Amino acid sequence: MPETSLSSWNDGRARSAIVDFVARVTKEGGKDYVPPAERIATFDNDGTLWNEHPMLVQGFFLADRIKQLAAKDPSITGRQPFKAFLEHDFKTLQSLGKQGLAELVFTTHAGMSEEEFADIGRAWFGSAKHPKYGCPFTQVAFKPQLELLAYLRENGFKMYIVTGGGVDFVRLISEQAYGIPREQVIGSSVKLRVEMKDGRPMLMKTAELGSFDDREAKVQNIGLHIGRRPILAFGNSDGDLAMLRYVRSGPGARLALLLHHDDAEREAAYDREFVLSPLAEALDKAAEYGITVVSVKRDWKAVFG
Amino acid sequence: MPETSLSSWNDGRARSAIVDFVARVTKEGGKDYVPPAERIATFDNDGTLWNEHPMLVQGFFLADRIKQLAAKDPSITGRQPFKAFLEHDFKTLQSLGKQGLAELVFTTHAGMSEEEFADIGRAWFGSAKHPKYGCPFTQVAFKPQLELLAYLRENGFKMYIVTGGGVDFVRLISEQAYGIPREQVIGSSVKLRVEMKDGRPMLMKTAELGSFDDREAKVQNIGLHIGRRPILAFGNSDGDLAMLRYVRSGPGARLALLLHHDDAEREAAYDREFVLSPLAEALDKAAEYGITVVSVKRDWKAVFG
Repeated sequence: MPETSLSSWNDGRARSAIVDFVARVTKEGGKDYVPPAERIATFDNDGTLWNEHPMLVQGFFLADRIKQLAAKDPSITGRQPFKAFLEHDFKTLQSLGKQGLAELVFTTHAGMSEEEFADIGRAWFGSAKHPKYGCPFTQVAFKPQLELLAYLRENGFKMYIVTGGGVDFVRLISEQAYGIPREQVIGSSVKLRVEMKDGRPMLMKTAELGSFDDREAKVQNIGLHIGRRPILAFGNSDGDLAMLRYVRSGPGARLALLLHHDDAEREAAYDREFVLSPLAEALDKAAEYGITVVSVKRDWKAVFG
Repeated sequence: MPETSLSSWNDGRARSAIVDFVARVTKEGGKDYVPPAERIATFDNDGTLWNEHPMLVQGFFLADRIKQLAAKDPSITGRQPFKAFLEHDFKTLQSLGKQGLAELVFTTHAGMSEEEFADIGRAWFGSAKHPKYGCPFTQVAFKPQLELLAYLRENGFKMYIVTGGGVDFVRLISEQAYGIPREQVIGSSVKLRVEMKDGRPMLMKTAELGSFDDREAKVQNIGLHIGRRPILAFGNSDGDLAMLRYVRSGPGARLALLLHHDDAEREAAYDREFVLSPLAEALDKAAEYGITVVSVKRDWKAVFG
């Protein structure tokens, strides 16, 4: 096992749980040894790998998209929920919930080819800045999590992102931001349609929801996309609880981690009141379900890179 | 580029097309260079990677499952389509079509957990023999295709199986038979349900079809699971045509290959008449669509290992 490079993690229960787990599953001949092919780890994205408070990254993307649409069709500027986006009215936007936001993204991009959506998304990631942190959006990834991904990779793990966010949105930056290939991203999705354009088959986005990848759907989509129970999962909200319990309750050594945003000074402090991504049951039942809580305040030396 | 190990491929147009393509996309600085992350290749399974004639491997599995069910419930032995399975009446079974067979597999296994299905399937692969070839079913894989998979792997390709067969059935043997991780198998699937058993969340198979992975659905599922257009695809029937055209019509160097089973002596000769997996339009339009036809008789020195 290589030396750990978890330098942004404070010594403590969470860091020890990670290091001990990795040592056990990689020790050849040990009773908890797991062959590399079975070392699958699943990570939630919003609030687990990068910042989601006060607004999801995809919410900011959508706000800018709506600005572009309003320039062409001013009639939408007075209508909700568009008005809330144009005014960065986070309180109203949060009340839409994650699924409400996802569905609005889907409606806004229906009828585009996958390539057209990718062009728009890449251009946005290349120029937009996070209004609170003033940096490109890919840089609101959490430094300790990037170290954890690298550490797991060095130890033969294959990482998947399992996100409530739009799968093609997250795929645009998964390689650059996290070193995770786009085909290892599972997320919310619309149904796709094949359409011929100039004799070339294109994949077109429809407005019809395929899967809203939250709660039990995360487990169902792990079954569909991966087809084996991961041995490690990391989440930060009740939307991840089903995945954490599914992973934790497999046979052999398993690790389920739950990030608690409790550091208002360095990032944000929120849990049960945050409508976009509430954390209540997972926090209350963590001990009972064998889930290890990670505290931003206590366990992380640094938050951003 | 390593030496090619395509020793079961005869010199000729098909072999040259493969070797030339791989040379072009792996030549750093060349105009057709493709970085390793983008070297995605998708393979159909039945009839492309292993034998499907006179009956799909999964058809034989289903026949043995129905025998087991009939032992418990003799009332099904006189009813179609069960009778046809019990009598190995391939003509009747073929007339069900691939989707009919797939749906019957799904109905037969509804209410099982993924783990229970895997146990049954693994036991079957461990003991059953192909009635025509007398070998375990994993050995009806085509030798030239195993060499091709190895050759592409050596050249930095990541291979996916995109099959009309049941995704969890093919995942049982993808690693052993092809060296393809189970999470790189895309296939037909039922919807899954999360159920608590003794406080443990289990993934249960329902009888409801999620996706029948054939024709346009292969392209849609590539979009959902992979999220980028592959650069190489290999199929053998009209069910693969949409995938072949989708892959072939991307920008840059692309290779679409179509296997034609035309060797009655060493394997089987069939195309448009074979109801389970008809090949007509793809063969007729191959030249127009830029698809390279591979003839078993002409291009393969050996068929099986």
